[in-house]
Amino acid sequence: MDYKELIRLLEDYKHSRISQEDAVEKLKLLPFEDLGFARVDHHREVRKGIPEVIFGTGKTPEQIVEIVRSMHRNNTNILVTRTDEAVYESLKKEFSGAEFHVNCKAITIRRSREYTGKGKILVVSAGTADIPVAEEAVLTADLFGNHTDSLYDVGVAGMHRLLSERERLQAARVIIVAAGMEGALPSVVAGLVAVPVIAVPTSVGYGAHFGGIAPLLSMLNSCAGLAVVNIDNGFGAGQLASLINHL
Amino acid sequence: MDYKELIRLLEDYKHSRISQEDAVEKLKLLPFEDLGFARVDHHREVRKGIPEVIFGTGKTPEQIVEIVRSMHRNNTNILVTRTDEAVYESLKKEFSGAEFHVNCKAITIRRSREYTGKGKILVVSAGTADIPVAEEAVLTADLFGNHTDSLYDVGVAGMHRLLSERERLQAARVIIVAAGMEGALPSVVAGLVAVPVIAVPTSVGYGAHFGGIAPLLSMLNSCAGLAVVNIDNGFGAGQLASLINHL
Amino acid sequence: MDYKELIRLLEDYKHSRISQEDAVEKLKLLPFEDLGFARVDHHREVRKGIPEVIFGTGKTPEQIVEIVRSMHRNNTNILVTRTDEAVYESLKKEFSGAEFHVNCKAITIRRSREYTGKGKILVVSAGTADIPVAEEAVLTADLFGNHTDSLYDVGVAGMHRLLSERERLQAARVIIVAAGMEGALPSVVAGLVAVPVIAVPTSVGYGAHFGGIAPLLSMLNSCAGLAVVNIDNGFGAGQLASLINHL
Amino acid sequence: MDYKELIRLLEDYKHSRISQEDAVEKLKLLPFEDLGFARVDHHREVRKGIPEVIFGTGKTPEQIVEIVRSMHRNNTNILVTRTDEAVYESLKKEFSGAEFHVNCKAITIRRSREYTGKGKILVVSAGTADIPVAEEAVLTADLFGNHTDSLYDVGVAGMHRLLSERERLQAARVIIVAAGMEGALPSVVAGLVAVPVIAVPTSVGYGAHFGGIAPLLSMLNSCAGLAVVNIDNGFGAGQLASLINHL
Amino acid sequence: MDYKELIRLLEDYKHSRISQEDAVEKLKLLPFEDLGFARVDHHREVRKGIPEVIFGTGKTPEQIVEIVRSMHRNNTNILVTRTDEAVYESLKKEFSGAEFHVNCKAITIRRSREYTGKGKILVVSAGTADIPVAEEAVLTADLFGNHTDSLYDVGVAGMHRLLSERERLQAARVIIVAAGMEGALPSVVAGLVAVPVIAVPTSVGYGAHFGGIAPLLSMLNSCAGLAVVNIDNGFGAGQLASLINHL
Amino acid sequence: MDYKELIRLLEDYKHSRISQEDAVEKLKLLPFEDLGFARVDHHREVRKGIPEVIFGTGKTPEQIVEIVRSMHRNNTNILVTRTDEAVYESLKKEFSGAEFHVNCKAITIRRSREYTGKGKILVVSAGTADIPVAEEAVLTADLFGNHTDSLYDVGVAGMHRLLSERERLQAARVIIVAAGMEGALPSVVAGLVAVPVIAVPTSVGYGAHFGGIAPLLSMLNSCAGLAVVNIDNGFGAGQLASLINHL
Amino acid sequence: MDYKELIRLLEDYKHSRISQEDAVEKLKLLPFEDLGFARVDHHREVRKGIPEVIFGTGKTPEQIVEIVRSMHRNNTNILVTRTDEAVYESLKKEFSGAEFHVNCKAITIRRSREYTGKGKILVVSAGTADIPVAEEAVLTADLFGNHTDSLYDVGVAGMHRLLSERERLQAARVIIVAAGMEGALPSVVAGLVAVPVIAVPTSVGYGAHFGGIAPLLSMLNSCAGLAVVNIDNGFGAGQLASLINHL
Amino acid sequence: MDYKELIRLLEDYKHSRISQEDAVEKLKLLPFEDLGFARVDHHREVRKGIPEVIFGTGKTPEQIVEIVRSMHRNNTNILVTRTDEAVYESLKKEFSGAEFHVNCKAITIRRSREYTGKGKILVVSAGTADIPVAEEAVLTADLFGNHTDSLYDVGVAGMHRLLSERERLQAARVIIVAAGMEGALPSVVAGLVAVPVIAVPTSVGYGAHFGGIAPLLSMLNSCAGLAVVNIDNGFGAGQLASLINHL
Repeated sequence: MDYKELIRLLEDYKHSRISQEDAVEKLKLLPFEDLGFARVDHHREVRKGIPEVIFGTGKTPEQIVEIVRSMHRNNTNILVTRTDEAVYESLKKEFSGAEFHVNCKAITIRRSREYTGKGKILVVSAGTADIPVAEEAVLTADLFGNHTDSLYDVGVAGMHRLLSERERLQAARVIIVAAGMEGALPSVVAGLVAVPVIAVPTSVGYGAHFGGIAPLLSMLNSCAGLAVVNIDNGFGAGQLASLINHL
Repeated sequence: MDYKELIRLLEDYKHSRISQEDAVEKLKLLPFEDLGFARVDHHREVRKGIPEVIFGTGKTPEQIVEIVRSMHRNNTNILVTRTDEAVYESLKKEFSGAEFHVNCKAITIRRSREYTGKGKILVVSAGTADIPVAEEAVLTADLFGNHTDSLYDVGVAGMHRLLSERERLQAARVIIVAAGMEGALPSVVAGLVAVPVIAVPTSVGYGAHFGGIAPLLSMLNSCAGLAVVNIDNGFGAGQLASLINHL
Repeated sequence: MDYKELIRLLEDYKHSRISQEDAVEKLKLLPFEDLGFARVDHHREVRKGIPEVIFGTGKTPEQIVEIVRSMHRNNTNILVTRTDEAVYESLKKEFSGAEFHVNCKAITIRRSREYTGKGKILVVSAGTADIPVAEEAVLTADLFGNHTDSLYDVGVAGMHRLLSERERLQAARVIIVAAGMEGALPSVVAGLVAVPVIAVPTSVGYGAHFGGIAPLLSMLNSCAGLAVVNIDNGFGAGQLASLINHL
Repeated sequence: MDYKELIRLLEDYKHSRISQEDAVEKLKLLPFEDLGFARVDHHREVRKGIPEVIFGTGKTPEQIVEIVRSMHRNNTNILVTRTDEAVYESLKKEFSGAEFHVNCKAITIRRSREYTGKGKILVVSAGTADIPVAEEAVLTADLFGNHTDSLYDVGVAGMHRLLSERERLQAARVIIVAAGMEGALPSVVAGLVAVPVIAVPTSVGYGAHFGGIAPLLSMLNSCAGLAVVNIDNGFGAGQLASLINHL
Repeated sequence: MDYKELIRLLEDYKHSRISQEDAVEKLKLLPFEDLGFARVDHHREVRKGIPEVIFGTGKTPEQIVEIVRSMHRNNTNILVTRTDEAVYESLKKEFSGAEFHVNCKAITIRRSREYTGKGKILVVSAGTADIPVAEEAVLTADLFGNHTDSLYDVGVAGMHRLLSERERLQAARVIIVAAGMEGALPSVVAGLVAVPVIAVPTSVGYGAHFGGIAPLLSMLNSCAGLAVVNIDNGFGAGQLASLINHL
Repeated sequence: MDYKELIRLLEDYKHSRISQEDAVEKLKLLPFEDLGFARVDHHREVRKGIPEVIFGTGKTPEQIVEIVRSMHRNNTNILVTRTDEAVYESLKKEFSGAEFHVNCKAITIRRSREYTGKGKILVVSAGTADIPVAEEAVLTADLFGNHTDSLYDVGVAGMHRLLSERERLQAARVIIVAAGMEGALPSVVAGLVAVPVIAVPTSVGYGAHFGGIAPLLSMLNSCAGLAVVNIDNGFGAGQLASLINHL
Repeated sequence: MDYKELIRLLEDYKHSRISQEDAVEKLKLLPFEDLGFARVDHHREVRKGIPEVIFGTGKTPEQIVEIVRSMHRNNTNILVTRTDEAVYESLKKEFSGAEFHVNCKAITIRRSREYTGKGKILVVSAGTADIPVAEEAVLTADLFGNHTDSLYDVGVAGMHRLLSERERLQAARVIIVAAGMEGALPSVVAGLVAVPVIAVPTSVGYGAHFGGIAPLLSMLNSCAGLAVVNIDNGFGAGQLASLINHL
Repeated sequence: MDYKELIRLLEDYKHSRISQEDAVEKLKLLPFEDLGFARVDHHREVRKGIPEVIFGTGKTPEQIVEIVRSMHRNNTNILVTRTDEAVYESLKKEFSGAEFHVNCKAITIRRSREYTGKGKILVVSAGTADIPVAEEAVLTADLFGNHTDSLYDVGVAGMHRLLSERERLQAARVIIVAAGMEGALPSVVAGLVAVPVIAVPTSVGYGAHFGGIAPLLSMLNSCAGLAVVNIDNGFGAGQLASLINHL
């Protein structure tokens, strides 16, 4: 029930076009149907341009095509994460704008290119193998309407390079750092800048790395005031960065 | 070595007041002495008002008094976290402005009351027992120069109350949510607002709660795009919120 | 806003005693204020007699007295779990009906003795040291309006006794089994009856027991179709049993 | 040895048709052979219609066919869980009524369609990827003689839809909720109804989800009084729901 | 119901001293009452001399005194493990033979000194701090009727001594080895003898020892064919050793 | 250096056929070369018939063939565990007596059929899927010279059958029980007999089973005095059972 | 910027060939560009011959070829770890000196054969299946300019052999020991020598081995003063050994 | 049996002063008694000055005094770790040279002040609260005959200071770094020097620090080639550093 319907209902009741019982019955549904709209209402400007997102894991190509079809009416950007080439093959038959990003296994259907974020989001990655996670973050931030920049391969061996890229670090309004292994890079970056740093532990490593637990714990225990997200969660990092960049 | 000293050194060398060896020797120290100043330099306005912070665990009262004494010269606010009454007794003899915040076991020495953050930081807690963590966050955000508000005891049983406080939720530019037990509150709050939500898992719970692991995992796995910090880390949440609120 | 207020609002609007803007404004709050009442409305008979419950851990005596005072108006039974003698001393000054149950460290204030559950809830415990958890379950089930029975100390060594108490097992409509150590008792009980068995792992054990993880995993992996609750969560077991026993 | 045989044995002995030694020898076997029958005896009505169940993991097609053959004599429904198409191919040659449920990888052979459960069991799932677990629960509840309903895809993004389906929630006598990710849905559902909610954590997630540990811990720590079963254990949830629904 | 009673019942029925109903009713209880006796029957000689054992943790002095009183009639040895001086003070008033073993916090009441085990049980400990666990094993083995010997402080530094005690190692029929730290000693001992070695990990250690997990895992992964028991479970080791030594 | 060589060396020195230096040099190697022989010496009768064992995981067919070739000279039985058909194909070309046991993926080359164990070793398994582990135990016990018996599929549903097989349980001198899921079977078996029970947790299960951790913890926390071995370690159980059965 | 450039810059400024602004601007970059060179400066002799290393996991053949191409200019040895045959096929087209080490899945391109380490590094492995990790260590140590020796298959069963190889143990200046299972071998080796022992836990094992956690914990808890590296980290062990061997 | 005794035995046999049986019997003990001496023999110079060490945890003052008394004869330095003032009070009555080091709860009795290590061992700590662990390392290295230096409080905030202490870093032959929190400091230090770095994780932290697991995992996953020891194991770090420093 939207705003117009609510007013129409009040008018209907005032002019006795519906009974008291019917009015109450419909109004009792308000709490359930209106939670979402209340929110959109207050933050319309923020939410404009927010893409529809589908978490691809465990969904069949048919299920994904069907969901995309239902979303397509809204004219927003569409992002499918953790998907694969088979899904892409199914989608592109129907949606010619679909693009497959092979590195991070994401599909995008871009309808709007409006950039509403206030500054630039920089995505840094420690090693070559962390790039897929970093690219998921870049893609997400971009689709959510933010200008992005990226700086890859600046781990322990590349610290030198990180320092020489000072200008790009300082040009960013929010920084995302994806790192596997011992996960020390986000703390180092946070020590060089004065903007929020979002840390994404990656599952890149072996042995006592435990699929990302080692860098996750490093980041949670850092004194550098990091915003930590789930292991390999490039999407979440991009989404959070966008939220901050729209403030 | 600051900017002025660097120029003086160049001039001294140009005018042969120091030898080439001495100049090189001093310049070779640049990498080591200048990392910090480069940073302050670019973000001076942001960093003004940042309090000095001491993590109190494992430090004797004597060690803390000595550290505070050395900090006191800088005229910034001072915050001692995870400390106790004994340390407070030692500190207040020398620093009459010291205050002990018994709930979150923190000591503050306030020298500046300038508020530089752009909006208000709201701190929400799920249960009465989460209040100490929430208060550490409030205190930190306040000392870092932010206006704060707080909303306690709005967990599962209090969801009703959370919803009725919609105005305060919407007045915040950044929201911190401290929650123990199953840690679902931050996701719920993030579903109601369009600003960044910082989630602090607390160690309040028992059994399969494992001292905060349960809510920590909940928050990391939330689809709501949360910025997660360490268990019971009210300070870190406040620091991160302040960083975002100064953007 | 309750049912009467909603109708009054409609009437006020119909008779132009309030403006359209005011009506809409008040109705927009409906979702937030009405969630709870909708629920009570439909299940009034079930919820009658549900006691107010306070989780005592991390609350000061003053906080608990204040909460109890605010609850006392509703004339329901009151249960404080995981509390201590000091809280009891504070409470009994004001609430003469307060009782302290030393075994399970709970306080009750009983206002109603109506039994609305359809059958009997039997609480079984494996060892003497599991009794506090079992008693919390008994107390909870009783305060939620259920007849209860208990059968203690029927672990491995007492299997014999369990079997000889067949009649009491078969007289129960719901059975709660609290067990530490390897936690096998709930499976055995579930093999002897055809009613739901709620399994409560307890923290009684040592070494590779890990504070209750061993029996928790046993119970989750049982083929016997158990309803598992948190370690030492006698309260949750009693609450769940009551819910089932009121069907 | 059943009731009739026991009486015949007594008579045989009384009339000296068997020796004392033989009588004692046969009676000494009673404890071992009678445990089960004692149980069936008392709950015959409840257990009628309980299907035979085979846990398919780790069993060869030959082993499963052989087990089904031995069960088939009893004329009950048969359920094979966690199996695959190869087993189905083997089974359907011999048992024409066998059906393969591809989503949840289960095979059913239905012999009875009697519905003995008192109310309806509703199965809710948070995301599309949780559907296989939800369907295992639906299938199990159905085969155990219960009317079922299902409500899929009502996670965080679909909360709105959950609320709009109030009638179906309230029409259920028992509710099963399958959820991966942070596992918050069962708590939310339990807050809206007054019937038992069985929570099934699923292994859908990644990173710090640890194959279902995150939602499992959430559910165990919920204040909502949930009945928790093992990760991905749709079968166990269906079985427990049926037990409750037959009370 | 024991053997004699069973025969008497048959005779009573044969001679019509009891009705058919009564006979059936009593026989139906057989499964429940007879499980234990069947066992004792076959292994009477083995079980003679088995002490009654009370796990002291979580029991009040009053509860323990009451249990001991009920056991005292059977004239067996009595062992209370994981108890304390307060319990001892309560017990010795009533049971003059009670002895407190301060090292392993156990109380014994010895009534029989018959040694029925076939060989000698040797208890080895790695470090001084493992002695309490070792002594619990010695005490248990002794009370279960076995001759014992002990060899303490033969860890890494004491390997030399272990090798020089070859005769005592070879004189044992069963060996128990208690070890904390990395828990390598049981493997070494098992490499020197050809009798069963029971490995008891102890909680002696720190850091990545995790209260005994490190040696527990070492022992479970040893190629030496160890019989592993729970961390600090000297009692279980003694009981198992006794069982083997009575073969 | 064996016994004869030692004496020859002494004689050679006595009769000055070798220098003092040479004698000392050779004797200094004694500690290193003799550890093993000393052991064989004392327990020759026990060790006779002990098969050579190869742990197959991570070894190439070539490596295994080469090891078997070197062992073949000793005329003992040979057991290759955790291997596969490819290794078998390589082995049987050279060793015609090689047999592949497909269930437990073991290869045996049998040279001796002498049975030296004193009693019978019974191997019990809870479910069909635990059979491979159970069969590894049977095979091992058999190759180590023990008579064996096996009793499969006697888990929760089959308890009835377990009890009806009382005679076979009581005929065993040592019992091995392999169980996955919640791992309760070994405790139940140990409650019915008075001989040592070796518990083997299996990795059969899912979810909170964690690849065998659930039954492992159950078994370690059992009060039944079990001898626990590693998850899926049928070999270790058979080896330990043989050691006990040769006492 | 290296030493010569720094002096030239000073001279340029002295002789007014560049402006003050330019000089300052270039000097401000010093901290960032010079960290590495400062280090090389002081330890030039040590670092000469240090190979370039690429961690292959998660990198495509194209990425690796590109990295190698950029490294090739430096004329150092090149080591690619955790790679595969496909990468080798790509590399060898361009770099004829590339060698594939199939056991440890490493590729080397050797340009220098200078040995700068002071002594010999001995690599010991417990079992055949640990050889790949051991060989990665040997290869690394060799490429870093150290003479190496190796001693494989000296685990529990091979202790005898270890002791008989005393001379080789004593000829080493640093020893690396790779061991899976319970991981006891490094402690034993460290007990026999007086040089640093680097312990590498391997993932060889099953069940409660947890992919190498068991030997990792053993090694961390050893009293033998081991230097522990990550599970399966043969490279790290070789690198650390080389560092020590160059002292 | 030492070298002289071995020769005397050979002579006794040659001259028929002992029988062949006696000679063989004594020689058969060689393996057991000689392991240790072989070692001392070859590394005498290294081991001279190695102090006797007692791990104090779990030992009574009486036990420690007795052990010290037996060690005192050897005239080496003596170190008691993880002890307390009560033990010190007992010791100093008898050993006037005993000193109590209150920070790291260690007692030393110094008999020799000979420094045999080749270079200097530097101990770095991240925070004030890590100092006790660092001091245990300093004390150990010193007692093992090494010159030491220490550099405290150079964590994240103190990075600046670390860099400014370049000379002291470069003066060290071995560096020990103790760090809690996220444990990043050892990697940073290792990036600045070309000598072995021993990393000691400390238990200083909270929440997802898990008593030192977070920095332990960081250090194990570092690319910097660290030698890791157990959490809080200052002693082990000192011992390992000394071993390296004596090469």
